[in-house]
Order: sequence, then structure tokens, then C-alpha cells
Amino acid sequence: MTQNPVRLGLIGTGRIGQVHAANIASDPETTLSWIADPFVSGAESVASRHGGRVTDDPEELLSSGEIDAVLVASPTPTHVDLIARSVELGLPVLCEKPIDLDIDRVDALRPRIAAAGVPVALGFNRRFDPAFASVRERVAAGEIGPLEQLTIVSRDPAAPPAAYVAVSGGIFRDMTIHDFDMARFFLPDIVEVHATGSTTFDPGAREHGDFDTAVTTLRAASGAVVTIVNSRHSAVGYDQRLEAFGARGSLQVANAPTSLVSLSTAEAVEAKPPYQDFFLERYAHAYAAELRAFVSLVHGRASSSPSFDDGRAALVLADAATRSAREGVAVAIDLS
Amino acid sequence: MTQNPVRLGLIGTGRIGQVHAANIASDPETTLSWIADPFVSGAESVASRHGGRVTDDPEELLSSGEIDAVLVASPTPTHVDLIARSVELGLPVLCEKPIDLDIDRVDALRPRIAAAGVPVALGFNRRFDPAFASVRERVAAGEIGPLEQLTIVSRDPAAPPAAYVAVSGGIFRDMTIHDFDMARFFLPDIVEVHATGSTTFDPGAREHGDFDTAVTTLRAASGAVVTIVNSRHSAVGYDQRLEAFGARGSLQVANAPTSLVSLSTAEAVEAKPPYQDFFLERYAHAYAAELRAFVSLVHGRASSSPSFDDGRAALVLADAATRSAREGVAVAIDLS
Amino acid sequence: MTQNPVRLGLIGTGRIGQVHAANIASDPETTLSWIADPFVSGAESVASRHGGRVTDDPEELLSSGEIDAVLVASPTPTHVDLIARSVELGLPVLCEKPIDLDIDRVDALRPRIAAAGVPVALGFNRRFDPAFASVRERVAAGEIGPLEQLTIVSRDPAAPPAAYVAVSGGIFRDMTIHDFDMARFFLPDIVEVHATGSTTFDPGAREHGDFDTAVTTLRAASGAVVTIVNSRHSAVGYDQRLEAFGARGSLQVANAPTSLVSLSTAEAVEAKPPYQDFFLERYAHAYAAELRAFVSLVHGRASSSPSFDDGRAALVLADAATRSAREGVAVAIDLS
Amino acid sequence: MTQNPVRLGLIGTGRIGQVHAANIASDPETTLSWIADPFVSGAESVASRHGGRVTDDPEELLSSGEIDAVLVASPTPTHVDLIARSVELGLPVLCEKPIDLDIDRVDALRPRIAAAGVPVALGFNRRFDPAFASVRERVAAGEIGPLEQLTIVSRDPAAPPAAYVAVSGGIFRDMTIHDFDMARFFLPDIVEVHATGSTTFDPGAREHGDFDTAVTTLRAASGAVVTIVNSRHSAVGYDQRLEAFGARGSLQVANAPTSLVSLSTAEAVEAKPPYQDFFLERYAHAYAAELRAFVSLVHGRASSSPSFDDGRAALVLADAATRSAREGVAVAIDLS
Repeated sequence: MTQNPVRLGLIGTGRIGQVHAANIASDPETTLSWIADPFVSGAESVASRHGGRVTDDPEELLSSGEIDAVLVASPTPTHVDLIARSVELGLPVLCEKPIDLDIDRVDALRPRIAAAGVPVALGFNRRFDPAFASVRERVAAGEIGPLEQLTIVSRDPAAPPAAYVAVSGGIFRDMTIHDFDMARFFLPDIVEVHATGSTTFDPGAREHGDFDTAVTTLRAASGAVVTIVNSRHSAVGYDQRLEAFGARGSLQVANAPTSLVSLSTAEAVEAKPPYQDFFLERYAHAYAAELRAFVSLVHGRASSSPSFDDGRAALVLADAATRSAREGVAVAIDLS
Repeated sequence: MTQNPVRLGLIGTGRIGQVHAANIASDPETTLSWIADPFVSGAESVASRHGGRVTDDPEELLSSGEIDAVLVASPTPTHVDLIARSVELGLPVLCEKPIDLDIDRVDALRPRIAAAGVPVALGFNRRFDPAFASVRERVAAGEIGPLEQLTIVSRDPAAPPAAYVAVSGGIFRDMTIHDFDMARFFLPDIVEVHATGSTTFDPGAREHGDFDTAVTTLRAASGAVVTIVNSRHSAVGYDQRLEAFGARGSLQVANAPTSLVSLSTAEAVEAKPPYQDFFLERYAHAYAAELRAFVSLVHGRASSSPSFDDGRAALVLADAATRSAREGVAVAIDLS
Repeated sequence: MTQNPVRLGLIGTGRIGQVHAANIASDPETTLSWIADPFVSGAESVASRHGGRVTDDPEELLSSGEIDAVLVASPTPTHVDLIARSVELGLPVLCEKPIDLDIDRVDALRPRIAAAGVPVALGFNRRFDPAFASVRERVAAGEIGPLEQLTIVSRDPAAPPAAYVAVSGGIFRDMTIHDFDMARFFLPDIVEVHATGSTTFDPGAREHGDFDTAVTTLRAASGAVVTIVNSRHSAVGYDQRLEAFGARGSLQVANAPTSLVSLSTAEAVEAKPPYQDFFLERYAHAYAAELRAFVSLVHGRASSSPSFDDGRAALVLADAATRSAREGVAVAIDLS
Repeated sequence: MTQNPVRLGLIGTGRIGQVHAANIASDPETTLSWIADPFVSGAESVASRHGGRVTDDPEELLSSGEIDAVLVASPTPTHVDLIARSVELGLPVLCEKPIDLDIDRVDALRPRIAAAGVPVALGFNRRFDPAFASVRERVAAGEIGPLEQLTIVSRDPAAPPAAYVAVSGGIFRDMTIHDFDMARFFLPDIVEVHATGSTTFDPGAREHGDFDTAVTTLRAASGAVVTIVNSRHSAVGYDQRLEAFGARGSLQVANAPTSLVSLSTAEAVEAKPPYQDFFLERYAHAYAAELRAFVSLVHGRASSSPSFDDGRAALVLADAATRSAREGVAVAIDLS
């Protein structure tokens, strides 16, 4: 490859921003050119490790003329404006999920992106996990026959603080949104959503009218049914499993072991240590692959990046699930 | 034990009737005294193997004065009358599920049973499976903390014939009813039902307005959520799994292996043979334990048998799920 | 099948004798006709459950004229005389392992059996275990290519009492003898034996000059190498595993689970209860299948029963292993 | 840590040399200063990726005055002289196994190292594998009680070329030597060696009087017994398992999975893709940890690096196993 490295501007230096920075630094196809964060000390800390110029103002980064594309890892409320400004400047964007908590703002942005003709990718990193990606490929290859059911178990290690819950948009927009995108990774055309929410343990969820426990079922146009089982906590570690069930068999993704060692005693046999406890660990490979796919997109090569419309679709499903869980109705969906 | 064996009358000699007959014959606490089946050759075949007098008329069996209790394994439409007549005669009954497909007939029977004061047990055999029973006991003992989610995967090996589907009452009353009882084995007080049904492969289901694929979620009064994933077929064999998820961990029931042998080659490693393919195999121990519990009930000893009201509750949930799947609404439940 | 049931005489009513009695009673092809035990109350107890006439004198059983074949489950020192007398009377014998602890007595018996032309089967029950039998069949069918290594892990739940160790003939003749037969089930033609013995925990073994820990390697004429890892105790329950390793892959036999349930908590995940703790549980199916094979042998039909010569071969290997472990030499074997 | 990075000289740029170079480059505590290889293009290729000056003459590297320590990854016959020269110059050495194929040369070197007082570490990388290291730590902590048996299955993916076999020193010195060191990682004081070798598939082994299949048993001073099962090929991928068996239970190391995905169909269930196929993949973490331990050693801090004497001990065991397999005798060992 003789192309120059893609010069990237990173906006936001929280947990995911830091992961992006490290991946950019170690990928020969990318350079970290500019870093923006209102908390400029965070940006400076990242720059000291991985290089790049620093600003507390994203606009300085965007209009620097020294970047080829933008990574948006700032808080959700900033996403729409940053995407809009980036595409206005002709800069491709990889934006963390969700685009926004308000579908109206998303829909207002949609025609501007279409008009600009600049690629916008959504940070649904799980599409790049080797296990999920391989199952999708094998399903597409017909290995288990027509897909009839997709069952996703997705539980976070621990519930977020109440203050976060208050502004999160609720469990479906904040957490299940990843699972909605995973569902659409296999079955893009979802036509109906049922959801059941409950509060079983988290006072923060109760206080803010949110759920800590949820089960969502999605019906695809093909008739296939997706089940998503969520909890905001999991004593055994991050619980991320999937089963694709088809007419001829099933493909299953197990939790990632943290060790090859098992213990057998008179009390219990074949006991293993708990699973990985954090999404950055579990999806480390996925974040790196997501960056490589975005680089392909920037270069105009084929890319498996989820699009702006994928980000919008996940939000539509999250809104529908929120309504279904609150009102006790199935919600019909039209993603076209 | 110095009590005489319980003299049992068996009505119906289909698959389950035959299992009961063999278990009665090999249990020292029971004797197979009378066998009734309109297809009298079936009754005669059972009698030749396990003893007992034979009739084509259940009434002859019930009024023989030679039985202490009745096992009803005849077709569903006969259950209500046979239970009614048995309790009238003071004979405890173990009746196969469902009591009936019509909740009105079940409700009409209810006060007659209460008035008679004769025990009626429902044949929800899975409560007696050693794995499910042990998980329930460990959950009750607090091993995983408060129960927050119960996830049941229940798939039959192959879809029934279209003629059977036509009279089955639909997937929820015919198949999921076992899972509804399993849900109530852990969480008796269910307050809400959502269901999604779909037809993905079975022309018989399509023809008769039934589903071959279904996902049901139940909310318990405690807030715990039950998910039931059903399919009418399963290429890998009978698929019967359960996960009880609590605040401190989870207990899982795996499918029953058919062999201790696994194969590893350059193509795949640790491959095992398919699971048991038939409910009579998978639940062989459960049927025997169910009989022992019924004998306890007949003797007036403590019994873990599911009651008539458990049978009614499962039907109420099945009716609600049928409505939910058809009308796209959550259905509130009052089982009191 | 129109043949009359085989009338069996059972000599010895210890643990294995009782298993045989129950299997005979429940097998329609066999009848328990006579039971002999010097401790006649043991014989009477068995007869009360499973039928049969009782004596304290094996000769009365053998010469009764009322039996078609003999099961010898009495102490090892009685085996040679009982086999000799049985074949003299034309009665096929199924004798528990080992034939004797003294190869000279075995060799003296050998021509008498050959001359009598009466079938003698050895009670190497593990050949009838469904898992081991299936692996052997699949190896023979070429599923893993030429067999290069066979690795057997065989550990008893707990060491026997010192008094038993004193007369046991040592770990190789008493315990490993089953594994020697399993080795020959796959690779009959063993040409060399190396053994290492050690005493790591059992004062009884130390006191009587025996080992509680042993590893034996056998070389087959084909070049394949067998490894047998033994311990007289195992905290996790009866440990009975096998790996057949071939040029194209391997087949493995896992320990038998006692439950389908696993527990996951913050301390450990996928923990299962300990394995079956007793050989009668682990090999229950094998004892029943062994009886059926012996019935075939008695009827002159094809039988997979291990022969007297198989019993002799296992003892030859046990003697060689004992010598190898004591003297630190490899011992060449000629089983022809 | 404010210490300057350790300036390393790397001798040999084959497979392991390249791994070392990449690890040095990505470890902030180390710098790759000099690279020597008679095939200077290999050294140049490494330098272009990871930096460092290049020479075809190791002496130039050693006497450059620009390195603090040496990594020897050149062919075995060069090891003794390079170690000798390094310690003469006061440079700590990490040398790949084996030190040499000739114990006399090793013993001649021993006093020179002792006299120099310069640390020499042996590249037994498996000690740094997280799984093996954790099992050893847990055994030492008493988690399974006194260690009674250690069982190692160690099979390479594919046999080396005949030309390599010819100069390898034989399977015990070339391949099992890693397992001998693993045995001593748990049980340093080995007192007896039995070995059985066989040739089952590899014409190269046969041609050069070597084995392709071997089983070795080691007796430790404590009475514990180690079993090592080796093959030069493995259809399922690199097979590296270990079981530590103690009085109170066992700890097992499974093969490293290459995916979280399993496939279930009507033919087989829970089938996973083959294991990692190459030692550089399987032990990637171990090589990095080995480097960090060596840096500690160079800094005079505590280090878990295996020593020169560990390297000698493994060769003593390999020599003993070679003799045992050829002559059919157990060989007593004195490692003191």
C-alpha cells in the first residue's frame, strides 16, 4: 500500500476516545493529527502518548485543514452538530452510537448527509467482533439453512450511576441499541417490536422511570424472530452471547474465557474463572477492526461499516421498544 | 413400607400411557389393575406386558371398585369428563396436560373438584426432571440471590402432522403450555404476558393459522421476567435448556448428551453427537418421579405434584399468549 | 425370540454379584435359578428380591442340573477351581477379573478349558461401556486414521482398606488390570511394558509394599503407544477418561456428568457437580450389556465377550508392570 | 520507572528472533540496539521494522559497547560460545533452548558462568504462559493439596523436515525438552526417568533412528509422578494440555480456542474450529512476558526466568530419556 496514512481528528478523549487513539497510533494506515476535548488535559494526555495537536474546541480541529476524517467520541448531545459540520466540510465521520436520543433531530440531519455525499459510519463496534462477524458470514453462506431465530443475551457487568441513567435515554436507547444493531446485522428488515421492561434491583432505574431488566422481541420481514435478553448487571462478568438458529442447525457465540484453566474438586468440577468484565476488553479486536473498516470507507474502498441509516434504524427500534414496554403494545416498524 | 401397593387404573395407552404402565409395573408401591382404551388392542398389548384387566370403556374401569386412583392419558377432549367422574367416585387423578383447550370448561370443573376434596394432579412431568428440580431448589435456597430472569429454550425435534396442528389448540396451548408451567414452577405469580408468533417453515402451521416459532415473555409480580423461546423443530434433537439468572449468578441446564464421546479433527474439535431426540427419552426419569409423587398424594403424604389449579393457570397463560401474539397487545393476568 | 431363558447360577453375592442378579431378573432372556454363597444370608437376600434357589455350597449349584451357565463373582482365589469345575460339567462361565493372581495357576487351567471346548468369558465390563465401545468401533472404522496413541486416565474414588491391599496382588493386578484389558481392546498385540509406581498418600500401600500411584506405558506391535495413568484416589469422583489419538484426529471419552446443571458466580463459571463416585453407577449399562453378550455366547451366537485368553493376557501385563516398576526395566511381552 | 530502556543485542533473526524483535520494539523498557545474523538480509529486514544497527558478525554486536544484554536466538551449536563470550563481557544473556545437545559442553560452560557472576536465562517460554503460570501458583498455594501427578500432553502440529530431524538431537532433546522444563517448573527435583519411544508415521524419524511418538514418566523426590505424552504431529492443531492432580482436586489447562463460535447440526453438536496451529501464536503472550522477566533480571530485580542450571537439568533429563527409550531401563537422576 503506497497511500499516505489517513490523518484523523479525534473529538472526545473518554474511554472510547482513548481506545481509538491507541488503535490509530498502532495502525500504519492512520495518523492521529488532531485531538479535541473541552477538558483539554484529557486531550493532552492522549497526545503525549500517541501524538497529535490539541485543542479544546472541535471547530478548530474540523477547520484545521490538516485532517482527512473525523472520529466523534464525545457525549451524545454533541453528535448531530459535529456530524453536520464534518460533512459540510467534506470530512468522513465515524460517530459513536447513538446518533442522538431524539429521532426528529436524526431525521433532520439525514437529508443533509445525503446531500453532502460524504460517508458517515456509526460506531456499532460489535459488528467487527470476530465471533459475531464469523457467525453472520456462515449464516449468509447457508451453513445452518434459513435463519429462523436469533437469540441475544446481553448483560452489562454493573449498572451505571443514577446520574447517568437520568440522561441516558433509557435502557433501550442506551444499552439495547447495540443489540438492535446486532439484530439488524443479521436481519436488516425488522417489521415489529415487542418489549417487556422491569426493575428488579437498581434504585437508580426506579428513580428515573427506567428499567434494569428488559426482553425485546423483533419480527423480521422474513418471519424470523429475534429475542434480546438484557440486564444492567451480571455477577459473572460481561455476558455477551448469541445463538443463530436455522432450519439445519445453530451457531453459538459463547462468552470470552479469561483463562484456559479449570479447577475440579470434591465441591465442583470444571470450574473456570469469571468472564471478561469490561466491554473494552471484550471488544478490543472489534474496535481495531472498526477503525480499519472506516479507513477503507475513507479511501472509497469496500467497507463493512454500519451507516448513518443503520444508526437511525437502531434508534427507531429503541423508540419502539420504549413505547412497547411502557404501553403494552406491539409496535409496527417501517425502516424503509 | 407396609402399605399395600396403590391399585391404579390407566385410561389411554398411547405413548405416555405406555410409559406410565411400565413405570407402574416396576414401582413396588403401585399395581396396574385396570387399563381402558377404546382401541382395546392397545390396552391388551399393555396388559400382556405389565398385567391388569382390560376394557374399552373407561366407566367400567372407574366403577370397578378395584382401583385406588386413576391415570388419565387419553386425548385432551376426554379429560374434563374423566376427571369429573373420578373425583365423584372419590378417586384421585393424575391427568395429562392440558386439562382442556377451553378455559370455560376448566372453570366449570373447578368448583366440583374443590367440593369433592379429592386430589387432582396435572402431568407437568418436567417439574420432576432432576435438573430443573435441582435448579429450582438451589434458587429457592438463595444460591444465586433474588431471581431476576428465567430464560427457557424449548424446541421440539420435529413439527407435528398438519392434522394434529388443526386440533392442537395452537402452539401456546399445545407446546408452550409445558414452559408456562415451568415458568410458574419458579415464579407462580405471573402478572403479564407478551407473545410473538411467526411461521417460518411449517406449511401445516400456516394452513391452520398457527405458529411454528414463538417467543413469549412473562412478567412476575416480583418484577422478574421470563423468556420462552419455542420452535416446532430442531435439527440437533430435542432442545430443552433453562437459565435462572439472579443477582449473584446463574444456574444453567444444558441439553442432555447422548454420549461421553467427542471427536476432534482438522475440520472441527470437541464435536459431540446430537442430543436426545424424543421427550420420552429426555424425561424418562421425570415420568417415574411424577408417578412416585402421585402415589404420595394418593397416600395423603406431602407431594410436589402440580395441582389442578396449576393446570388451569398454564391454560390461562396460553390463552393470553395466543391473544397477545394475534392482537399485538400485552395481556394482564390475574391468577388469584 | 422363541428360546427359553438361560438358567443362570450365580456364585458370590457381593457388590458385583448383586448387580448381576438384578440384571438377570430384568432381562427376559435370563432366569436366576441358583445362588451360592458361603455367607448364605447374602444369597437368601438376593433370592428374596430376584428369585432362585439358595445354597452355601457352589458344588450344589454346579451339579444341580438346573442351570445352563455360571456367573462367578466370588473372591479371586476361588476362580480357578470354579472355572475348572464348570467347564468339566459343560457349563459356560462368566468369571470376574482377575482369573487368579498367579500366572502359573492360570496357565495350568488354560489347556483344560481348551480341551473342554466350553466358552469362558472374563468380566472386563468396561468393554461394554457404550462410550468405550463406540470409540473402539469408530477407530476400527478408520474415523481418526491409524491409531498412534491411546491415553487412559483411571483413578478410583478412594483407596481400599489396608487389609484389602495386603491380599490384592498389588495395584497393577488389582486395579490397572482393567486398563490393561482396555488397552488390549484397542491394541491386542502388546510387545513391551514400562511402569513407574509411587506411593504418595496411602499408608496402607506403603505398609504392604504396594503403590497408590502408577503410570504404565505399553508398546503395541504396530508401534502405537498406550499410556495408563492411575491413582487409588480421586477427590472429584471416579475418574475414567480415554483418548484415542490417530493420524487424522482423536476421539475422547469424558467423565460421566451427574447433572445437566452448572453454576456461574463471581467466583467461578460453568461449575458442575462432581462426577459419579462409584464403579457400579458409572458402569451400570456396561454390566447389563456384559450379561447380554454372555447370553449370546451361551447360545453359540456371536459375542463380544472377552475370553479366558484376554483374562490371561491382562494378568501377564500386570505381572510385567509389577516387575518393571520394581526393577526399573522395560519388560518384553509375548502374548502369542 | 525512571530507568533508561535496556539496550538489547539480538543474535539470530529466525522465527523466534523476529518475535523477540517485535516484543522489544513494543516494550517501553527495552530498545533494540544491535542485530546480528550471518544472513545479514534477515537482520536488515528486522532492523527496517524495529530499528537497531545491523551486522553479520555477532562479535561486533557483543563488543560494540552499545548493548546492556544479549538475546541469543541463533542455531543451537552456536549457543555455548555466544553465552561464554557474553558473560566474559559482563553481558546478561537470554538464550533459546537447548543450551547445547552435548552435556559435556554444557558442563564445561557451567563454572565459567558461575565465575563470571553474570545472569544467564534460558528461553523456556512456556513458564511464562498465563495458564501454566497460574496453575503452578495455585498448586503452590495449596489449592489442590499435595501434588501427586502431573500429566502433560504436548504434540506439535506437524513433524519437522527429515534434514532437521537429522541434526535435532532426537525428539527428547529437541521437543520434549520443553516438557522436561515444565515438569521441573512444578517439581524441580526429578530422581528417575522412564521413556518409551516409537515411530508410527514419520519416515524422517525412522531414517534417522529417531522417534515421532514418545511417552516419558518422571519420578520426583516427593514421590509425585509426571507423565509426558508427545507426538510430532497433531491433526487438530498444536496440542498443549496439562493436568495437575493433587489430593484435593485437579487443575487443568485446555487447548487455546481460536474462536468463541460453535456449530450444532444433525451430524454433531458444539463443534468448534481447530486449535491454534503454531507455537508463536499459542505462546505469543509468553514470549512477551519472558522478555519482561529478563529485563527484571538485567536490572537485578526479582525474576522468574529459568536459569542456566534449569537449562542444564532439562538436557540431563533429555539424555536420560533418550537412553531409557533405547535401552529399556529406568535411569536414575541426580540434578544436585
